[in-house]
Amino acid sequence: MAAQTILFDFTLDKDKTADEEARQQVAKILRNELEHLFPQLELAYSMESPENGYFAVLHENKDTVVTCRIFQHGLLTLNVEYFLPDGKEPLISFDAMRTVELILRQKFDSDRSKYLPPIKRGGYIDIYMTSSDERIIEYDIDKVVYEGRSPFQKIQIMHSKTLGNMLLLDELQNIAESDLIYTETLMCRGVENYEGKEICILGGGDGALLYELLKENPKHVVMLEIDELVMQTCNKYLSVICGDVLEKRKTDQYEIVVGDCVEYLKKFIGEGRKFDYVFGDLTDIPITDVPEGETWDFIRTIFEHSFKVLKPDGKYLTHGNGSTCKVQLRLFEEQLNLLRPKVKFTTTKAFVPSFMEEWLFYQVTFA
Amino acid sequence: MAAQTILFDFTLDKDKTADEEARQQVAKILRNELEHLFPQLELAYSMESPENGYFAVLHENKDTVVTCRIFQHGLLTLNVEYFLPDGKEPLISFDAMRTVELILRQKFDSDRSKYLPPIKRGGYIDIYMTSSDERIIEYDIDKVVYEGRSPFQKIQIMHSKTLGNMLLLDELQNIAESDLIYTETLMCRGVENYEGKEICILGGGDGALLYELLKENPKHVVMLEIDELVMQTCNKYLSVICGDVLEKRKTDQYEIVVGDCVEYLKKFIGEGRKFDYVFGDLTDIPITDVPEGETWDFIRTIFEHSFKVLKPDGKYLTHGNGSTCKVQLRLFEEQLNLLRPKVKFTTTKAFVPSFMEEWLFYQVTFA
Repeated sequence: MAAQTILFDFTLDKDKTADEEARQQVAKILRNELEHLFPQLELAYSMESPENGYFAVLHENKDTVVTCRIFQHGLLTLNVEYFLPDGKEPLISFDAMRTVELILRQKFDSDRSKYLPPIKRGGYIDIYMTSSDERIIEYDIDKVVYEGRSPFQKIQIMHSKTLGNMLLLDELQNIAESDLIYTETLMCRGVENYEGKEICILGGGDGALLYELLKENPKHVVMLEIDELVMQTCNKYLSVICGDVLEKRKTDQYEIVVGDCVEYLKKFIGEGRKFDYVFGDLTDIPITDVPEGETWDFIRTIFEHSFKVLKPDGKYLTHGNGSTCKVQLRLFEEQLNLLRPKVKFTTTKAFVPSFMEEWLFYQVTFA
Repeated sequence: MAAQTILFDFTLDKDKTADEEARQQVAKILRNELEHLFPQLELAYSMESPENGYFAVLHENKDTVVTCRIFQHGLLTLNVEYFLPDGKEPLISFDAMRTVELILRQKFDSDRSKYLPPIKRGGYIDIYMTSSDERIIEYDIDKVVYEGRSPFQKIQIMHSKTLGNMLLLDELQNIAESDLIYTETLMCRGVENYEGKEICILGGGDGALLYELLKENPKHVVMLEIDELVMQTCNKYLSVICGDVLEKRKTDQYEIVVGDCVEYLKKFIGEGRKFDYVFGDLTDIPITDVPEGETWDFIRTIFEHSFKVLKPDGKYLTHGNGSTCKVQLRLFEEQLNLLRPKVKFTTTKAFVPSFMEEWLFYQVTFA
C-alpha cells in the first residue's frame, strides 16, 4: 500500500511569473498540457497573491490530485499525487513523465527543469534513509528479512538488491554485507599489526570486526557486547561479514562477554588488565550541536575507561561520523582533547557502500 | 533560489480513515497540531469523496502552503511547500520537523510514520540524481566548477564534498575523483597482466583508464576519443584520477587520437593491426527495454569492429550497467551472443561511489 508523489519543477523567465496576468497565462498552458495526460482533469481551487504568486489544485475524479505553484521569482512547481494499490502498475510511466517534463519545458520556454522519480509513501518497508548530513537516499531494499526488539533496541535485517543484507538498529543503518571496507578502515588493515596482540572490542555485536581481527592472528580478543539478540541475528543473517565467530562465545583465541562494557572495563581496570588495542565499536556519535546529554557523557565515559586499560603504546580505534559533519566531528575531537593524560589522534576515511557516504575513523594514542 | 517541499506520511488505523466522519476527525487533529507550527494557518479548500478520501489545502498568508490527503486505506500524506530565498535559513528546522512527526504520530496513534528531509526545487545546481534503477539520490554537491558544451555533449564538472570533482556528460554522472575502483574493476587490476601488451581504448576521454594502464607497463596504448573538450576539461579538473596523461597527445608509451573511433577501427582493420586488449569506454548502455535504435546499433558496431582488431587470445573489456538493471543487462548480453565468430564473457562488479550503486563490467573473449 502506498501513495505516489511525483515532483516536477521548471525555472521560468521572470516576466512569465511577475504578475497575476502572466501567471494566469502560464497556468493555462499547464492545464492544456496536463489534460493530454489526465483527460478528466478539473480545476478545483486556485488562489493568487502579489507576494506569493499563484497556487492551484487540479484533480481527476478526486483521485489523482495535482497541485501547482507559480512563484513570482520565476519558478513553477508541480506535484502529482495518487494512491497506488499493491501490485498495480504506476499510473504514469517513467517515459510519460519524462515526456511531460520535456513538453512543458518547451511550452514554458524554460531553460531548466527537473522531475524526480515517484516518491513512495506509506510503504511498510522504508526505502528512504537520510545521510548524516540530511540528504535523501533511496535504497533498493526489497525485503524485510527479520524484525525484532531486544531490551536495548529495535533490530531489523533488510535486504538490498545490491548491498545484500543490512543491519538496522533503531532504524539506523549499521552495517551491510557490502561493507568490508568499513571494518578494514576501522582496523587500519595493512597498517596495524595485530599478530600476537591483546585486543578488546567494545560493542561490535555484528561480529564483523572480530571476524576480520581473528584473520590477523592476535593473541586474544575479548568482545564486550550488551545485546544478545543482535549477535543471534547477525550470526543468522550476516554470516558473509561475521563468518561463524558468533556461533561460539569462547575459544582459545577469543571470548565474547554479554554485558555492559563499562562494568567490564571497570573490572579490567581493577585487575590491572591491559590491551594493545581497544576498539570503540558502539553507538554512533550523536548528531547534535551541543556536547551534552547522555550520549556525549557515555562517549566520554568510554574514552576515560578505555585509556585506563590501554598499554602505554596501545591504540584506541573507533568510528567517527560522516565526513561532511564538520560540527559533530569537531565536538568529538574536543572530547578527545579533554582527556588526561593527553592523547593525540590520526584519522582514516572510506566511502561505506551501505551508508552511501564517506565515513571518518579515528586512531587515538597517548600523546 | 529554491522552493522547499517537505513530505510527511502517517499510517493510520483503517477505522480512522474509513468514512467521511472519521476522516474529518483526523483532519481536525491535524489542523490543531499544525497551528502550533504555523500560527496563522487557514483552511482554504477541502474536498471529499467516498472512493478517494479527503483532501485539503491550508496556508499561512498564501506563503507556506500545506496540502493533506487522507486516503481511506489508512494513510495520511502531508506536503508542506514554501519559497526559500537564497541565503535564508529554512522556515522549519530539522528538529521542528522531527517533533511535528513525533507529535502527530502520537496524536494519530500511528504505528508508522515518515518524514523526508526537505526537497530543494529550482536550484541552479541539480543535487538529485537518479540511479540506473530509478532511485532518488541526493548528492552533496556544493559547486559548479565548470560548464561547457562541445559539438558532442554538455560537459560539467561538479564538486561534491565527499566525492570530489565529478564529470557529468549530458547531465549524467560519468566518473569522479572518488572512483578509482571503477577503473580498477573495468581493467581487472591484479588479474590481467598488461606488461608488454598492446592496448586500444575506445573513448576514455576522462583519462583515468589510460593513467592506470600506463602504471602497468604496457608496450603501447592507443586511445581513440572524439571529444577534445572533455579531455581538456578532465586534464584541468580531474587530475587526481588522470594524472598528466592528457597533457601530451603522443609519447613512446601512448598515443591519443582525437576522432571517431569507428573510423580508426576500420583503418586498423584495413592495416591488419591487432591488440591484446580493447577497452570499450564509451557511452553507457542505453536504458531501454527494446534493443533497437541508434545506441544499440552503435554498441553492435563497436563490438563487431573491436573483435576484428583483437588478437585470437585478446580481450575486450567494457562497463555494463547498474547491477539491478536485469533487463538491460540481458539485452546487452544478447548483443554479445549475436556476434560471429562466437564470444564468451565473464563479469566483475563494484560499488562505484559516485554512482551510489553497484556496477557490472564485462570481459569478453573469443569462444
